Amino acid sequence: VTRGSGALVLQKQGSFFVGGELVFSDGLLGVPIPGWTLPPTGNIMVNQMYVQYQIPTGSDQHVPVVMVHGGTLTGKSFEETPDGRMGWYEYFARQHRAVYVVDLVSRGRSGFDPTIINNVARGILPTTTLPTFLRLSPEFSWTAWRYGPSVGTPYADSKFPLEAIDEISKQAVPDLNAATAFNPGPDPSVSNLVRLVRKLGSAILMGHSQTAFFPERAALLESAGIRGIISLEVICSMSLTAEQVTSLAKIPILVVFGDHIAESSVWKPAFEQCGQFVNQLNRAGGDAKMLHLPDAGQFGNSHLFMMDKNNLEVADLILEWIDDHVER
Amino acid sequence: VTRGSGALVLQKQGSFFVGGELVFSDGLLGVPIPGWTLPPTGNIMVNQMYVQYQIPTGSDQHVPVVMVHGGTLTGKSFEETPDGRMGWYEYFARQHRAVYVVDLVSRGRSGFDPTIINNVARGILPTTTLPTFLRLSPEFSWTAWRYGPSVGTPYADSKFPLEAIDEISKQAVPDLNAATAFNPGPDPSVSNLVRLVRKLGSAILMGHSQTAFFPERAALLESAGIRGIISLEVICSMSLTAEQVTSLAKIPILVVFGDHIAESSVWKPAFEQCGQFVNQLNRAGGDAKMLHLPDAGQFGNSHLFMMDKNNLEVADLILEWIDDHVER
Repeated sequence: VTRGSGALVLQKQGSFFVGGELVFSDGLLGVPIPGWTLPPTGNIMVNQMYVQYQIPTGSDQHVPVVMVHGGTLTGKSFEETPDGRMGWYEYFARQHRAVYVVDLVSRGRSGFDPTIINNVARGILPTTTLPTFLRLSPEFSWTAWRYGPSVGTPYADSKFPLEAIDEISKQAVPDLNAATAFNPGPDPSVSNLVRLVRKLGSAILMGHSQTAFFPERAALLESAGIRGIISLEVICSMSLTAEQVTSLAKIPILVVFGDHIAESSVWKPAFEQCGQFVNQLNRAGGDAKMLHLPDAGQFGNSHLFMMDKNNLEVADLILEWIDDHVER
Repeated sequence: VTRGSGALVLQKQGSFFVGGELVFSDGLLGVPIPGWTLPPTGNIMVNQMYVQYQIPTGSDQHVPVVMVHGGTLTGKSFEETPDGRMGWYEYFARQHRAVYVVDLVSRGRSGFDPTIINNVARGILPTTTLPTFLRLSPEFSWTAWRYGPSVGTPYADSKFPLEAIDEISKQAVPDLNAATAFNPGPDPSVSNLVRLVRKLGSAILMGHSQTAFFPERAALLESAGIRGIISLEVICSMSLTAEQVTSLAKIPILVVFGDHIAESSVWKPAFEQCGQFVNQLNRAGGDAKMLHLPDAGQFGNSHLFMMDKNNLEVADLILEWIDDHVER
């Protein structure tokens, strides 16, 4: 496998948006800005989703891969790692895959609707209408994202680039989805994934953590074109009808969990629940697989294995699954 | 000139952050999220600036170019145009330049500090402390960004891709800088541009609109390594000391304005003021140039000439200036 020395040869690169609706806003700004005459009302676009992509030469034989980041993060997660190594956005392209990386609706380059905040500032709306912007501290992430057993102490075999822990903190942006992402209801990012697959014709959808079940939810809205699903450390808590199970069983699904799961109060029950999800699909004739990284010889992986020191080895396991279950 | 058919061959690509400070926040979330135990306090990173880059093969002979977007926009401005043509991020790379595109501190992938908003939501701070998030409507932009003389009517020679006007609306994100960007005081994005130049060794800095004078302000903080400055439709209202003029006169500076300036109440005075700025630098022995696009045979350009239909022709004029004034 070419690990990334040598030139990266692209057929095409760029970015675009999927989805988006023009809505009237009566809160385009809060307090007036001295010296500027800016209208407080007008139309703005909301619910659009930013998509960056690169299409390497030689990718015509492969199914495009769509990567969706997790909570408090953006598409940056899949670019260069915190300690300056190659990320999956580039690595998958070097393995001849067209790659699409998104920023979820309401953060990063997708933007959000500030109307409520501006109207609270203007005294028009009560403070109880303000949305919650979640950010996480590195102290919280240390154990929740499994760098180690307690803050400041890494696991002996930790693969997370802890020398660059400040750089992962820099990736964090305020997260407007935290309160709703795990609800099974309509979500503009999920609908936009459906739009993206329609545009591409076919795709493999990959989600991580907060969005790890978004590919399944997109497939339950419209499965056409979704050739494979990769759920990275997902919370499989959505209860599915028999019809939904039958529908998902038609798509190859890979669920991936890292190391030190048994020691985590968050990830241990998620792992067990996802094992049941995988069994449920396979009993319905599906092709679902649980990839527990230590069972495949990859040890010490944190929750963020696209950034871990063995991120390319983990990518190789995923690419192998794509070869065997989606493209063969 | 290769307009972009054929492969794009990259030596390296990626993204990183410059700047950033870890600060204690007592408002990591607003109202609690049911089902989750999330700490409301902890450290978060603020003031970091996201930088994406690509380094083509054959770029060693050229000075890297840093592109900074304008108000209510992100680095997306320099990627694929609203109507799906090649943007400057790719085009400059195809002309063998290493290119760095940023998201300003407090928007896009750089994120922002939500502490005040969350603490207003929690009732700890008064609503008067809320920041202003500016968004602009397409109705406002139509004349302010010179698509045409009045909303719905384009200039006969307009080069803005008006058939894709919804796509430019999708690029908009809430702008926390609108109230301060034109103040000459300290700005974390300006300091971060200095850090970026230090990291690169040398660079040409390009700013647009809200940030068009950021390259000059960065140079006034630390000019070492700033080999050239490109200010796209800038408001040259900052009053400079004789010492500051002497300092800026040591750097080649290109100021660019599009078409239909005389018809714009915003851009006509800016154009005149910038003409005086250019003269002031040249009287001090500088190498400053005003490039008024119609004088160079490019007509109908809006405020967003990196997206206009003749965006690559405008880029060629800028590249020619780099050849003649920076690299010769």
